Amino acid sequence: MSPTDPDLDPAVHVLQGVRRQQPLVHCLTATVSMGLVADGLLAAGARPMMTETLEEAPTLTTLADALVINLGTLSTDAIAGIPATVAVAVRDARPWVLDPTAIGIAPVRTPLARTLLDSRPDVVRGNASEVLALAGEGRGGRGADSRAVPEHAEHAAQRIAARTGGAVAVSGPIDLVLSSTRRAQVERGTALLARVTGTGCLLAALTAACRAVESDDFTAALAATTWMSLAGEAAARRSTRPGSFRMHLLDALDEVGR
Amino acid sequence: MSPTDPDLDPAVHVLQGVRRQQPLVHCLTATVSMGLVADGLLAAGARPMMTETLEEAPTLTTLADALVINLGTLSTDAIAGIPATVAVAVRDARPWVLDPTAIGIAPVRTPLARTLLDSRPDVVRGNASEVLALAGEGRGGRGADSRAVPEHAEHAAQRIAARTGGAVAVSGPIDLVLSSTRRAQVERGTALLARVTGTGCLLAALTAACRAVESDDFTAALAATTWMSLAGEAAARRSTRPGSFRMHLLDALDEVGR
Amino acid sequence: MSPTDPDLDPAVHVLQGVRRQQPLVHCLTATVSMGLVADGLLAAGARPMMTETLEEAPTLTTLADALVINLGTLSTDAIAGIPATVAVAVRDARPWVLDPTAIGIAPVRTPLARTLLDSRPDVVRGNASEVLALAGEGRGGRGADSRAVPEHAEHAAQRIAARTGGAVAVSGPIDLVLSSTRRAQVERGTALLARVTGTGCLLAALTAACRAVESDDFTAALAATTWMSLAGEAAARRSTRPGSFRMHLLDALDEVGR
Repeated sequence: MSPTDPDLDPAVHVLQGVRRQQPLVHCLTATVSMGLVADGLLAAGARPMMTETLEEAPTLTTLADALVINLGTLSTDAIAGIPATVAVAVRDARPWVLDPTAIGIAPVRTPLARTLLDSRPDVVRGNASEVLALAGEGRGGRGADSRAVPEHAEHAAQRIAARTGGAVAVSGPIDLVLSSTRRAQVERGTALLARVTGTGCLLAALTAACRAVESDDFTAALAATTWMSLAGEAAARRSTRPGSFRMHLLDALDEVGR
Repeated sequence: MSPTDPDLDPAVHVLQGVRRQQPLVHCLTATVSMGLVADGLLAAGARPMMTETLEEAPTLTTLADALVINLGTLSTDAIAGIPATVAVAVRDARPWVLDPTAIGIAPVRTPLARTLLDSRPDVVRGNASEVLALAGEGRGGRGADSRAVPEHAEHAAQRIAARTGGAVAVSGPIDLVLSSTRRAQVERGTALLARVTGTGCLLAALTAACRAVESDDFTAALAATTWMSLAGEAAARRSTRPGSFRMHLLDALDEVGR
Repeated sequence: MSPTDPDLDPAVHVLQGVRRQQPLVHCLTATVSMGLVADGLLAAGARPMMTETLEEAPTLTTLADALVINLGTLSTDAIAGIPATVAVAVRDARPWVLDPTAIGIAPVRTPLARTLLDSRPDVVRGNASEVLALAGEGRGGRGADSRAVPEHAEHAAQRIAARTGGAVAVSGPIDLVLSSTRRAQVERGTALLARVTGTGCLLAALTAACRAVESDDFTAALAATTWMSLAGEAAARRSTRPGSFRMHLLDALDEVGR
């Protein structure tokens, strides 16, 4: 690994915190990307937990240092388990991150995501289409695919941040991270991240891990986005093919900033 | 990568179509292989979507360019969601592929697969045991494992093709692809494909992606089978061990025919 | 691969048995690690099957050579399907392995795991926290994470073995395998195994594969633990980063002892 990248400087203390404190992150996340999310959290130094049933998820989240709710694939178990699990996180003042994956025309997740805003997620992480749909300004994307670009979602992101009091991260070729008082762009990363399933889900989970060790929402969200972008670049230097890129991405999450 | 393989020639325009049009493929597929299927579609140039609930899958499939139904692991969500999702695909004239994974003695999926034939899948993709069981001529395999060889399933495949009006692909050491008027064998590939979970599921999803850009069922099925076989061979040239072979297979799906 | 490791000698006939007989292992296992478990079984020479519904899992388990029940993530389908599936395995005298993942405070899996002991699993495989919780001596870990060390769980493991008449494997930096009359420690392996999701689940499934070909519970459990530990070491010689280590681990399961 090359020496630390200057763009990583503001995030280094967050990375180090995750590696030192090894936060336990409870993930109610898309089935398809559970493996990448769990392996990515472990590579970053955090620890995953992934139960989603109403019967067990609320109890288990009392053990967690942070929670991430991702609506991709949204099983019946998750539909039942998410509201009660978020309620426990809110009650216990655990930080939590909302990833409104593929909202738009989907009839359950779209109103669910909007309702969850009332529970004030510390960070919302989505692509531009999802952020627009969450703010009620767009129709949403096709699956996890985004037709909109982050700049177009800035106003929507600001409205969400005003409502939650937290941060919003809009993923895209240029990532946008903002809160009601701060704003940053991350012009790093690689288009290869979009050729591996679940990198957005992993970014949301990594954001929860960062937020577990850094109480400032904006700083945590920016650190996670930077971490993922630089890991993506490091992986892209080793392979431009999607199978080997995925492997190198996990390795790079472990290497960045050391 | 070596220059284009002559066996790939008839499939090249389909590969190029998938890479150019990036079809969105809605997959109701085995939980165990969701990751490989999604990453494989992305590697091939297509885009996956994987919601299976009755509440959301039918609506989301209206966005898709093709649908694949795979019965492996068959969750309660999928049991409920599959018939309504197929009905929407049929209503909207979206191409769809049926993969009758592990039918035989399983009491839900076996009659479900036979009923789904009434909805006339554009392509059926299975191993010999599954094709025999689907046609009511055999008892089925053990899990996704096949005791029968493709040649023995040819008559069963012909009966299925006559009933659906579409194509049938029988996977095995020699792959057989046929429709009521055409027939081809693919004597390529590698036994290593059977040492990675979900390569059959991925072939079915890849077939759906090919069918989204190529309206002839037989041509699409043959293109997908050829694509996967040649990618398997390319991967096998790089590694004969299953973990690294899996990674090289994803890379090779991206490389074949370029 | 280096020549066979002397520590592997007592396990070699079990490895060879798995590779020769290719046992079909029915896995009701954590969703997050299904991919690694299935690919790991295939790499080892066994064959996976992964249906968990009440409607189909009991019937399909009649085809299997062994069964593994893992309680991680525990979906509603698995909650319904596990008791009836275990009952079929017991009725048909199929060997079965219990992995009481993340029991402790979880309100469904904790009493379920204790009840399943009445069905006398041939092998119980867990970390120290889980084994303590299963014996009613501890509060359990945080997720799949273990705060306790194997030595502290030895008394609990002995009590479980006395109750089931089978073997117990306690995973940790030093693995402990015991039955009511025998005891062994495996001081091999690598801490990297804890940086990949599902290696414990895979060890449980591998134990079931070994038990399918070796009727002695203790010998089978010790062989699986040794196999996984030596594969981990072989992988660690190739990479110390988690993404590439995971790939090399699968390759090494295929290579160890050849």
